[in-house]
Amino acid sequence: MTTKKQKYDSGCPVAFALDAFGDQWSLLIIRDMAVRGARTYGELLKGWEGISTNILAQRLKHLEEKGLVTKRKDPENWRSFVYELTQKGRDLGPVLAEIMLWSGKYNTAPHAMTGTVEKVRSDRTGFEARIRSGELP
Amino acid sequence: MTTKKQKYDSGCPVAFALDAFGDQWSLLIIRDMAVRGARTYGELLKGWEGISTNILAQRLKHLEEKGLVTKRKDPENWRSFVYELTQKGRDLGPVLAEIMLWSGKYNTAPHAMTGTVEKVRSDRTGFEARIRSGELP
Repeated sequence: MTTKKQKYDSGCPVAFALDAFGDQWSLLIIRDMAVRGARTYGELLKGWEGISTNILAQRLKHLEEKGLVTKRKDPENWRSFVYELTQKGRDLGPVLAEIMLWSGKYNTAPHAMTGTVEKVRSDRTGFEARIRSGELP
Repeated sequence: MTTKKQKYDSGCPVAFALDAFGDQWSLLIIRDMAVRGARTYGELLKGWEGISTNILAQRLKHLEEKGLVTKRKDPENWRSFVYELTQKGRDLGPVLAEIMLWSGKYNTAPHAMTGTVEKVRSDRTGFEARIRSGELP
């Protein structure tokens, strides 16, 4: 996970993608940056699923190495950093959209966020365009 | 991974999906069943990426628990089993398609399977329909 080398370098496009974000947390971090507008470590740590600080740090480093996320000094607070999706990261919008539509079909739990799925279903083009442009929600 | 309880039950559609297949191997197993027509444990073990037998067994069990895969006795060989995607598993076709298109854009390795990506790009509807219908490649 923490090296630049691919774990399984078969050339298959599914394997290539999973090497970049195929774990239980990376797409949740990308979601928080793409959809919820999280930009700092503290904001990412406060995601809904309770990621631990060591896993967050490890995954951010990996996503940086894979070119999906950039890290820079916060111009407004030089002791802090800002994390942003690269174009490569923002191009995962359509992947997020399909994943959300699939879950919308199969998650029957009473607390399932059906409103979020409905937003994607009713305006998928807009959802993807907002992520692609880096526009905050 | 091996329990039916969700790891993080936030209600978010991305989290719901990652709880079912968000690891380095599950989507490769699903790819082997959906695209390459693998149906037996032996065929799945011979995937391109060299999955180990204990990880394969663990992931198949998890995918069964999540309702994406069924396991039954092979009618032609009662000492063997056949694994098949359920409708819920086959409905991941569009997710696989978007992942492949993303990799097609960013995997610049000389051995990247560009032909596979091109097939999806040129006939995405057909690709998804074949997976959805359970038709073998």
